[in-house]
Order: sequence, then structure tokens, then C-alpha cells
Amino acid sequence: MVEHSGLDIMCLNKYCHSSSSSSSSSEHDKKTFAQIKLNLSGDYPKKNAEILSGQYGTNLLLIGAALMLAIAHHDPFVKEEHLLSLVTCLMILQLLWMMWYILARDRQKNTRTEKDVHATTCWIRGGLTLLALLSLIMDAFKIGHYVGYHSCVSAVLGVYPVIHATHTIAQVHFLWFHIKDVIKSYETFERFGVIHAVFTNLLLWCSGVMSEAEHFLNNHMRRLSALGYGNLTTGHSEPLCNCTTSTCSMFTSSLYYLYPFNIEYHIFVSAMLFVMWKNIGRTMDLSSNRKRLATKTQGLSVGPILGLLALASTIGILVVYITHVESLQTRQSAISMFYIYGIVLLLFMCCASASGLLIYRVDHIPLDTSKNPSRQLDTELLFGSSIGSWLMSWCSIVAVLSTNSSPPYLWTNCIYSLLLVVEKCMQNLFVIESLYRQPGDVESDDPELQSAPEIFSVTSSLAPPYNGIINRAYETPDKACVTMENEQEESGPVYRCPRKPSEVPLPVGNKVVEPPNIKRQILKNLSVFLIMCNISLWILPAFGCRPQYDNGLEQETFGFSIWITVLNFAIPLNLFYRMHSVASLFEVFRRV
Amino acid sequence: MVEHSGLDIMCLNKYCHSSSSSSSSSEHDKKTFAQIKLNLSGDYPKKNAEILSGQYGTNLLLIGAALMLAIAHHDPFVKEEHLLSLVTCLMILQLLWMMWYILARDRQKNTRTEKDVHATTCWIRGGLTLLALLSLIMDAFKIGHYVGYHSCVSAVLGVYPVIHATHTIAQVHFLWFHIKDVIKSYETFERFGVIHAVFTNLLLWCSGVMSEAEHFLNNHMRRLSALGYGNLTTGHSEPLCNCTTSTCSMFTSSLYYLYPFNIEYHIFVSAMLFVMWKNIGRTMDLSSNRKRLATKTQGLSVGPILGLLALASTIGILVVYITHVESLQTRQSAISMFYIYGIVLLLFMCCASASGLLIYRVDHIPLDTSKNPSRQLDTELLFGSSIGSWLMSWCSIVAVLSTNSSPPYLWTNCIYSLLLVVEKCMQNLFVIESLYRQPGDVESDDPELQSAPEIFSVTSSLAPPYNGIINRAYETPDKACVTMENEQEESGPVYRCPRKPSEVPLPVGNKVVEPPNIKRQILKNLSVFLIMCNISLWILPAFGCRPQYDNGLEQETFGFSIWITVLNFAIPLNLFYRMHSVASLFEVFRRV
Repeated sequence: MVEHSGLDIMCLNKYCHSSSSSSSSSEHDKKTFAQIKLNLSGDYPKKNAEILSGQYGTNLLLIGAALMLAIAHHDPFVKEEHLLSLVTCLMILQLLWMMWYILARDRQKNTRTEKDVHATTCWIRGGLTLLALLSLIMDAFKIGHYVGYHSCVSAVLGVYPVIHATHTIAQVHFLWFHIKDVIKSYETFERFGVIHAVFTNLLLWCSGVMSEAEHFLNNHMRRLSALGYGNLTTGHSEPLCNCTTSTCSMFTSSLYYLYPFNIEYHIFVSAMLFVMWKNIGRTMDLSSNRKRLATKTQGLSVGPILGLLALASTIGILVVYITHVESLQTRQSAISMFYIYGIVLLLFMCCASASGLLIYRVDHIPLDTSKNPSRQLDTELLFGSSIGSWLMSWCSIVAVLSTNSSPPYLWTNCIYSLLLVVEKCMQNLFVIESLYRQPGDVESDDPELQSAPEIFSVTSSLAPPYNGIINRAYETPDKACVTMENEQEESGPVYRCPRKPSEVPLPVGNKVVEPPNIKRQILKNLSVFLIMCNISLWILPAFGCRPQYDNGLEQETFGFSIWITVLNFAIPLNLFYRMHSVASLFEVFRRV
Repeated sequence: MVEHSGLDIMCLNKYCHSSSSSSSSSEHDKKTFAQIKLNLSGDYPKKNAEILSGQYGTNLLLIGAALMLAIAHHDPFVKEEHLLSLVTCLMILQLLWMMWYILARDRQKNTRTEKDVHATTCWIRGGLTLLALLSLIMDAFKIGHYVGYHSCVSAVLGVYPVIHATHTIAQVHFLWFHIKDVIKSYETFERFGVIHAVFTNLLLWCSGVMSEAEHFLNNHMRRLSALGYGNLTTGHSEPLCNCTTSTCSMFTSSLYYLYPFNIEYHIFVSAMLFVMWKNIGRTMDLSSNRKRLATKTQGLSVGPILGLLALASTIGILVVYITHVESLQTRQSAISMFYIYGIVLLLFMCCASASGLLIYRVDHIPLDTSKNPSRQLDTELLFGSSIGSWLMSWCSIVAVLSTNSSPPYLWTNCIYSLLLVVEKCMQNLFVIESLYRQPGDVESDDPELQSAPEIFSVTSSLAPPYNGIINRAYETPDKACVTMENEQEESGPVYRCPRKPSEVPLPVGNKVVEPPNIKRQILKNLSVFLIMCNISLWILPAFGCRPQYDNGLEQETFGFSIWITVLNFAIPLNLFYRMHSVASLFEVFRRV
């Protein structure tokens, strides 16, 4: 079943071509056409397939985006049903592709599929399964909602959750058994299949984000009119008939607590599928397929305690904020409280990231520059998703500096925003450096066992036995190392500089004062603390604590529509950033 | 003057460290701090410097974006002066850095700086110099405008053009003499300098785009009120005093014809500086530093003629459109005319790209996968800047399908938008494949000279002399080639599969019917034609032909504010796409 390699077909063609060069011109024409046809199907260059599939996926997403924009304007001729029909079709297509893929893999069971061990970890898949379960509950609620209103709403609203549930189950199965595959057969076709899956999930993410944004905007409007700022009509339209069951309102209100999980589920899956897409046709560097890291939890104390403290106080703050922001008397104090709490939390997080970076500065290890699409994507996503929150922060700062009014939270808002920028910069640096450091080789758990023998065995492979022959390469090993390091940047293979015996930390003097596994334990505690803090900063906006809507400052400077647009762009990115940081920091926790 | 390599410093530290391991604890603390300090300054890992400088640049841009958003809302406390002051400061900083860079390079004249020959070409720099000249004229006009109104406008409006002119001159000098440098000393510092330059130019681009968008919006409002659609107030504020010279209005109106050139200048420069940033610390693969391609123009006939025809008719269409769209009677016919012209032009462009791709399918050459940041950036920019126009097209299609009204240009708009999507997809494929094909080796100009000797010399390096020894690698060279090709994808070095003598097109039979340089000439003609068409499609929106503002269809479906937001995002990207395609296609023209 394995597709012929493009080059083989090409060479075959060329053979035919040159052997028939003396035959008639019409026959030649026929052959040329046959060759074009064959080339178009079999020999499509990898680069072209990549670009073409990327363009296909991007356009899918943009069609969805265009529909969403029309829905956002409450255009009478473009309804949510249209978007849902599109998404349902795309999900069915993805289901068909996944089925085909699994069947094709089953049939060629005897050929071993290469795997990319970096592509994902057990605990990420576990987390995603949990998120998928919550999504399934959401689908059940949606079906319940449809049953209640089925007499007056479109059938699409009933079909969609059923298909979505099927899609979720099938996709989780796919994640567990196939996401690490390095596809090497039917490359062009599979490339389209995978990118279709990536962008279907992205579209589901976008549609979830839109529903959330609409919900928050409606909430905001409701609050404003409750506070007496004019009777603003909300864009939300309830079905026109009465619910036939007694649980409709319960379904509707519960849905919004489940949305955040569904949203995170889809964006994570699409990132993982994107790594799979990047891996198509890749030749794996087998040496980089190391054995898995074992998660060790010994020596954890301060980090988890402080983290849990942060988490608990966050939930307290969330409850207080949501209840207090509704009334005119307590509104400003609720907002002030949020900012002060945020400043304290961010200061701690900055300190944690800074200490992590300082430890790395003391403890020099050359970076691991082997090719790893998963890690590179992690880096790019961290960086890219920070942009949303940075833009929001700078807008807040501009608003504070230019405003005429002086609410009590004016300067706390400014400091909070500045700290948000600084904290993200430092955390990104810390996470990215952690991911690029070579894990657990240099500092083994037992400093006594580590010292001489292992290191000498590494160097001995390079150093000559001291038998009197002068070897210039060994005389200046540092320079050699530098050159090799530079070359590493360019090409794939990993080569670590051997340490000279004199560089190896010896178990004397300062060694007793600061043995390396104390550094490691500090790093472990720091990452656990940062994980908890990031979860806190995810919970706050995900469940309704969005002072950017409520404080009125930015709205005054930028106007309602510009500011809401900025928020609709920035908040989903920020939520994703926090969840993604949690995943990355957990990886850091396991590596240090 | 060359900065010490990080690793060297580290090794020195470790030496001290281990030799002093028996000394007192306070001395050790001091040393640790000294080490941290040294590491922070000298030994900062490359990856961190990259991330940190990227974050610095992004935040610069976002500060500017926040200011622009506030200005767009006409906030009374944030004025254009604030933005201009920020930009002026950034330009002065960049000037200082460039001065430092040039002086530092001058002092180490004896050490040869490595160059990346792919970074830019002579003709790109020539084109940029031309754009820079037009920018200088714009600055002169701005100074003239300031002189006329100096009594009532902020001094920043006078300082800004002076600094901008200085900046432009210095930057063009920098482009000519230093843009290809591969920086290897003071890497961390220079990284910040270069990224500062990249984002200063991006900010200048954004600010130019904002001025343009505002100008078009005001124009649109003016037309609408002239047509009787209510008296809409424009946001544009003229200075409050009278002009003291007689040329103010001339300056103001001329400015808008020069803006498009200034905008393209800045975005191109920032792309080139970004390549320079990517090259910092890179080890050049000297084998890929081939000699320059000579631009050959023989055999050009159909392409330039058709292209010039397209260009001439575009200018005609532009003039007719701008004059006819102002009046109510001719408005609809002007818009219809635009769409019909666009459809014809796009159809021709699709055919051109498709023929190019077909020629490539017939004529298989393995792709050149050597590392080349410049080319990769070209690819990503082509892809990324297409997104704007795709979004606009899909919005138009959604609007057409959902509208209730039926203007005469309803379906032409739909077809035009669809063709726009298809044309960009095909052109991207064509350009990217062209850039990745190995240039001009396989088909030399003279088919007689090319055939046997050269090829045999290539294969002979791999093939054994036929002396009876059976070599398995030569028996199945195709398979060997496939493996090597896959390896190429992963690592840097280029290795081209040798062609077997039987694969080499021999000068018999079909050779006479279709000698390879006919294919080449077709490709050259196609790329010249596409260049002219892309220039046409740049001229139309750049100089005022934007039916998306005038046709009213999309505005009805998406609402005024959403649609204007989409246009403000999409049109600048589309303009950049066209200019960038012209540059890439010229590169294609020189390579085929």
C-alpha cells in the first residue's frame, strides 16, 4: 500500500522518455501528457504540498471567520445555523479522514510506524481527555437544550452537538494512538487530512471564543443597565417558544461554565495536530529519541504550598469580585481589590522566574539544539499568545496616562499592567531556556556517583590516551567546542562539548554548601509555584473576572467599539497563553 | 575589540572556581555574584538574547499600536504629536546605533566580515533607494507644510520630518554597505540594535498605514455626503490658523500620492533588517555562496507586451474609476467596470501561474533545501500577507450570498473575489516552487555544450570507474538519492543527486521539438507578465481605487465598523503582498 516515492516515478518516466526519443511526435505528446498527469498525482514536491495544504486550511478558517463577523453584526440573513452547518460538515469530513487513517494503519500493521517521542506526553493526553470529558458534558447539555426548544429552533442545533460528541470521542482515540506517528505513506493526501483536522479544531476554537465573547458582552450590558447606565439592548436572542422541559435554564447557565474547557481543548488539539503535520515525511534522528523522563516529586514543599495558597485566594477573589461588581457601592472597591491582588501575585511570579533564570546563569549547560518541531512550536506559541495580553496592557497604560478622571484604581491598574508585561517576558525567558537545556544529564541525583567516572568516559572518547603524542585539538578544546556549537545551530546532529575534568564540580568546599540537587529542587518548587499561579490567572478571566470590561478607563480613551475589539482579540489569546504556560511549565518541572 | 565567546568566559570562571574551592565561604559568595554578573553580561545564551530582543521589539510596536488606537478614537488627551515624539525618539536611537555599528566595523577593518549573499540583491537595494528618494520628497513637503502653519501646530510636526529624512539617508547607506553582514562580535548588543531598527521601521509602516486609512475613510465620508447620504463629519482636523505660504494645499494634496511609496519603503527595509537579525551569529555555508545570477533578457516578447498592456489599461481604469465614482449616475457602472476588468486580469494571471507550474511538473529538478533565512522569510511573508486579502474576499462572498439587494455588480463581485483567492494560491505556489528550485544548473543556455562532459564529471565523483568491481550503491542510485534527499530536509548541507547519463535529455528527437531554453523563455515571459500584473494590482488600491469602500454590499452585511476594521487590516497587507510578489517574481525571473 505504500505510495511510490516521487523520485522513483520520475526516474521511471525519464527512462521511458529517453528510450522512446526516436518514436513519432504524437506518441511523444501523449507520453508528455501522461507524464504531467503522473507527476501531478504522484510526484508532487513536498514543499508544494505543504504550501497548498496550508493555504487550504487557512482559507477554511477565513470562511468561518467571515461568517462569524457577519453573525457578530446580527445580519438577518446570516445566522448561527449557517456557521454550525459549516462546522458540522468539516467535523464529518475529519471523522471520515480519521477513520480512513486508522484503517490504513491497521492494514499495514507489519510495517512499524516511526514515532516522534517529543510530540506529546502522557500527562498532556490525560489532561486533554479530561477536557474532552467536560466537552462531552457540554454537548449533553446542548442536546438537552435542543430537546427543550426543538419545536422552534433549527434542527442544526440538535445535529451539531451529536456530531461534536462523536468527533470528540474519535479525536481522543486518535490522540492516544496516532498523534505521534510520523507519516511516510500517502504523504500528500495525509497532509491535507491533518491540516483539515488542525483548522477544523481552530475553527471550533474560534466559534467557542465568539460565543464566550458574546456572553461576556451581554453580561456587561446587563450590568450596565442594572447600574442605571441606560437601557442597552443585548444582541442575545432567546428561542421564541417556551421550553418543554424544566431544565432549560439550568442547561443554559451551566453551559457557560463548561465553555472555557471546551475552548482550551480545541486549541490544544490543534497545536498537537500541527506538530503531527510538521512531522509528515520527516526523517527521525533516532539518537534524539531518548527514554522518557520520570516525574520525581521529592523535595517539593514551599512551591506547592505557596501555589495552593495563591489558588485558594484566587477563588476567594473571584467570588468576591463577581458578587461585588454588580452593585454601584462596592464596584470600585472590587476592582481595586482585583488589581492589588494581581500586583502581589505577579510580583511573586516575577521573583520566581528571575530566581530560575539566576540559577541557570550560575549553572551553565550548553543548549540542546536538536531539531524538535514540538518544542519550536511551544516557543512560538508562548511568544505569539503573549502579544494579545501585551497589547491590552499597553492600552491600559496609555489610558491611565491620558485620562482625566481619577478612580481609586488608577495607578494600581497602571502598575498591574506593567507587571503583566514584565512577568510574561520573564516567564517566557525562563520557560524557553528550560525547554532548551539538556535535561538531567549534568546533575544526576547523587552528586557522589556523578563526578569523575561518567565525565571521564565522555571525554575519553575525544581525548587521546596520554602517551606523549601532542594533539593540538586537545590543547584548545574550548575553541573546538565553540566551533562545534556554532555548527550545531545550522545542522541537525547534537554534539555536546565534553567538560574538562577541572570544570566538573568536585564534591569539596562549596559543593557541600550548595549541592546541585538543591538547585534542582529550587527549580522544581519554582515551576510548581508558577504552574499554580498560571492556573489562577487562567481561572480569573475564564470565569468572569474581567475588570477590563468594568473599570471604564480604557473605554473612555479608546471608545467602546475599539476597546471591545481589542478585548475580543486579547482575552482569548491570554487564556490560551496561561493554559499553554501551565503545560510548558509542567514539562519544565519534569525536566529539571 | 571582538567580544569574548561566552564559553571561554565560562571556562575561565570554572577554573577560578575550582581552584579556589578550599578558600573561605564569604569569598565564595563574592565570586558567585561576580560570576552571575559576568554571565549576565558576557555569557547570555544566544536563544535568550533572541527571545529577549524579540520581546523588546514586539513591545515597542505594541506601545505604538496602543497610541494609534487612542488617536483613531480622537481621544482629546492623546494626540498625533505623542505618537510622532515616540517615533522620533526611536529613530534617533536607531541613528545612534547605526553610527556605532559603522564606526565599530570601520575600526576592525582588518578582520573580514562574513556576508550572506542571499540577504539582498543589487536591484532590491536600487528599488529601495528610489522609494527612499520619494520618501525624502515627502519629508520636504511635510517640512513645507509645517513652515506654513508653524504658528499654530506643535514643533514635533517640524522635527519629525527632519529626523525622518536623516534616518532615511543613513538607513539607505546602511542598506548598501552593511545589510549583508553576518554579525559575530557583540552579538547580544547588536541583536538589540538590529531588532530595534526592524521594529522602528515596522512602527513607521503602521503609522503610515494609519494615515492612509484615515485619509481614505475621510474621502469615503466626503463622497457619501456629496452623494446626499447625510452630512457625516470627518475626523480630520485642519490646523486652526491660516497658512503663511501659498503652497500649503499643494503640499497636503501631494502628500497622499507619496504615502504609498513611503509605506512600502519601510516594510521592505524591516523585512531586510529581519533577515540580518536572523543571520546574527550564523555560520555561513560557504558552498552555498554561489556567484551572482546574471539577468538575461533575451527571448522576452509576449510577456512584457501583455504586461505593459495590462499596466496601461490599469491606469486607464484607475482614472475612469476615480472620476466616475464621485457622481450618483456613473457610480454603479464604474464599480462594475472595475470588477470586470479585475476578472479578466486575474484570469490571465491564473493561466500564467498554472502554465508555470505545469512546466515545472514536466521538468523535474530536486529542490534546493539549503538553509537560507532570506528565502524562508520570503515564503512566510507571501503566505502571511495573503491572509488579509483572503479574509476580505471571503467576506465579500458571504456578503454576496446573503444580501437582499441586487446591484448590477453582485455576481461579478463574487467571481472577482473567488478568483482573487485562487490567483493568490496559484501565484504563491508558483513563486515558492521557483525560489526553491536550483537555479540555472540543469539547463544551460547551450544544449549542445551541456550534455555529456559536465554530467559525467558530476557522476564520476560518485560512480566507480567501470573496472569490473560491482558497487551496490551504484546499482541502485535512485534509492540512494531518495535517502539523501530525505536527509537533506533535516540538515544543512546540499547534496544534489547525480543524474544518470540515461536521464540526461539528449539532443535528439523531442529535443529538437522542445529544447529546454524554450521552457526557460516561457517562464521568463510568464514572470515578467506576472510582475506587471502585480504592479497593476498594487497601483489600483494604492491610488484610490477601492470598490470595497464604495459598493455598499459588505457594509450592509457586516456593519460599518466591522467592515472598516476588516479593510484597515486587509488592504495594507494586500498592498504589501503585491509589492512583495513583484520582488519575488523578479527574483524568479532572474533564476529561471
